[in-house]
Amino acid sequence: MPTPHRRADITLPSRLPTGFSAATAKVGIRTGAGDDLLLLLADRPCAAAGVLTRNRFAAAPVTRTRRHLAASGGVARAVLLNAGCANAATGERGDRDAATSVRCVADAIDCPVEQVLVNSTGVIGRPLPIESMVAAIPRLAEETRPDRVEATARAIMTTDSAPKAVERTVAAANGGVIRIVGVAKGSGMIHPDMATMIGLVLTDAEIEPAVLATLLRESADRSFNRVSVDGDTSTNDSVFALASGAAGVAAEPTDLVEAVHAVCLDLARMIVADGEGASRVLEVEVTSAATAAHAREVAHTVGSSLLVRTAVAGGDPNWGRIIAAIGRTTAEFKPEEIRVEANLVPLFAGGGPVEDHEDAAARAFSDERVHIRIDLNAGDARENHLTCDLTADYVRINADYTT
Amino acid sequence: MPTPHRRADITLPSRLPTGFSAATAKVGIRTGAGDDLLLLLADRPCAAAGVLTRNRFAAAPVTRTRRHLAASGGVARAVLLNAGCANAATGERGDRDAATSVRCVADAIDCPVEQVLVNSTGVIGRPLPIESMVAAIPRLAEETRPDRVEATARAIMTTDSAPKAVERTVAAANGGVIRIVGVAKGSGMIHPDMATMIGLVLTDAEIEPAVLATLLRESADRSFNRVSVDGDTSTNDSVFALASGAAGVAAEPTDLVEAVHAVCLDLARMIVADGEGASRVLEVEVTSAATAAHAREVAHTVGSSLLVRTAVAGGDPNWGRIIAAIGRTTAEFKPEEIRVEANLVPLFAGGGPVEDHEDAAARAFSDERVHIRIDLNAGDARENHLTCDLTADYVRINADYTT
Repeated sequence: MPTPHRRADITLPSRLPTGFSAATAKVGIRTGAGDDLLLLLADRPCAAAGVLTRNRFAAAPVTRTRRHLAASGGVARAVLLNAGCANAATGERGDRDAATSVRCVADAIDCPVEQVLVNSTGVIGRPLPIESMVAAIPRLAEETRPDRVEATARAIMTTDSAPKAVERTVAAANGGVIRIVGVAKGSGMIHPDMATMIGLVLTDAEIEPAVLATLLRESADRSFNRVSVDGDTSTNDSVFALASGAAGVAAEPTDLVEAVHAVCLDLARMIVADGEGASRVLEVEVTSAATAAHAREVAHTVGSSLLVRTAVAGGDPNWGRIIAAIGRTTAEFKPEEIRVEANLVPLFAGGGPVEDHEDAAARAFSDERVHIRIDLNAGDARENHLTCDLTADYVRINADYTT
Repeated sequence: MPTPHRRADITLPSRLPTGFSAATAKVGIRTGAGDDLLLLLADRPCAAAGVLTRNRFAAAPVTRTRRHLAASGGVARAVLLNAGCANAATGERGDRDAATSVRCVADAIDCPVEQVLVNSTGVIGRPLPIESMVAAIPRLAEETRPDRVEATARAIMTTDSAPKAVERTVAAANGGVIRIVGVAKGSGMIHPDMATMIGLVLTDAEIEPAVLATLLRESADRSFNRVSVDGDTSTNDSVFALASGAAGVAAEPTDLVEAVHAVCLDLARMIVADGEGASRVLEVEVTSAATAAHAREVAHTVGSSLLVRTAVAGGDPNWGRIIAAIGRTTAEFKPEEIRVEANLVPLFAGGGPVEDHEDAAARAFSDERVHIRIDLNAGDARENHLTCDLTADYVRINADYTT
């Protein structure tokens, strides 16, 4: 197997967008080195939106955040995040702890409690060390700084091997610049419907809360909801967007939309490339499907097949597993009309193998990025699914997580 | 991790039921040691049934077998099976090869071609060495013997670590005995809807073809269709049943039905215990579901969660992953009314963790068999799902299968 992705070439943005600041601390929520508590502040109440897990064991902080966004009409001053403990499946104590933590932030910065958003990530079923958090929050509120992008990204990492943050800028009409900074964590439990990833999309653009909510939902659908690492979704997954309006300039709405989409897609790709144990990125592209649902079903079935993903891990051009996965979908197609290729090398066509491509196929499956294209020849719909290979390291990382 | 299941204590049946004989040969379909071609004969035309893959890239031999069973009205004289090559996704050549092989058997034993059933298992997308098979079949037809159970089981193995065969007997009314012998292969690609497993259920009872078909369908639904190893289904999965009637005695129909069910369930359990890389068997039992569909969805979602299965591999009582999996189903439940236990140790109840059971929970997850019981407290439906843990060895086995 190849060495894991080289992530050293990722340069993190240096500053948060205008109007935001952050501080982090180590309060002992997780074992090991590094800060585990993050407080992000907006200088003044700003537009806020969230795309939150649909898991029915949604964690206490997720439930609370949902209520706060509804009560405030999409306005927030602060986001409190921690790693190491999900505060999920923690019963009434979990609800109390989430309430205590946001109340503590609201008191520290003197804002309505519903303007504080909160989430946690880590082990499910264990209580937060709430006393330590309460003790740390007032100091954090005084220490926030705009140049804390990397610290922000690191404070929410769980099994991530590297911090994930990205920046895009949009030129404003009057020559000014609008910035969008995205920060995310997540390497396992990544799946359509977002799983245990946590994302923050911050911009100094001025956007109405309702528009921001729609923009975030669309961006998540095009990015985070099209990736998977292990098919599990979680109790805490969420992406928050906050728009401070502090840039003081306006951009073309379409430029802004494109940039937010791009930030989310960049983060999604970083998450997949850092999938637990991942050695290769696997992209499954389905074209010419009869319907969007068929395209999605095929892309997802192939992209989440353990046998396909272990074949990619081994650099093994065992494309029969792709065929078997397509064959168990309900998508409309004629077997003899399907074409399958990997990194442009044809593998299957006319109902049988494409001869004389074995060496090229082996090379394709050994690339750092394996792009499988499936042409169903049944219509015009298409879909992409982004995942990573499934390696023995994935199992090692996940076989011993709580203990 | 514990050592793999000890399989040395499994005693295989010594003889096929009366009326059947088998022979095997090594014809070079797969590399490595051991026979790879099996011919099973019935002394005279007998009742035959098949439960065949619903995968839409069903292999050439599967398609042919389906046609033969329809044309013969469920009567067969022979079953030809091979390991090492699935003869799937092989286009017209695959169809020709399947036709050639059954014609060759029909000629050798002088029977109508539609009384020959055929299947293959192994790598998808490669052609059979049909000349070698054709050369071997006439000799095989002359060499069949009734004491060839182990050879039969071994000739269809792919990644299986041990041959799988089991026997049950039913007392007949007049003091005689009816025998049922089951043989199976399958360790990866096992999933509801049967995947790449191949099974043979042989009995010397006398059963009408239509009754045999119903009995086999029901038995498969209760056994093979409730196990999974990796969630992938395949192009070649099938279970065949043949009833020779050669015992010459009659049993209580309900006794016979129970015995066939038991044979299939035994085989399913052997397959799961021999799941690729498996170190532990995982059984997920869902009780008190509102509907059978809900019970099935929860059992299957938890049983196929990579995170649950890697936790079991690590002996790690990370039951939060079970909760997260339940939470992403559509089943009816109230989070605070669900109970989850592992090997009778309560883990989650009243919406939160059950305290003071951490040591007991760790022991439960370290057992050779981990039985997770989920009480949804929403109705009367129940379902079981049988699988194995997901280990680094699974990935190693599957990362390098064709090459």
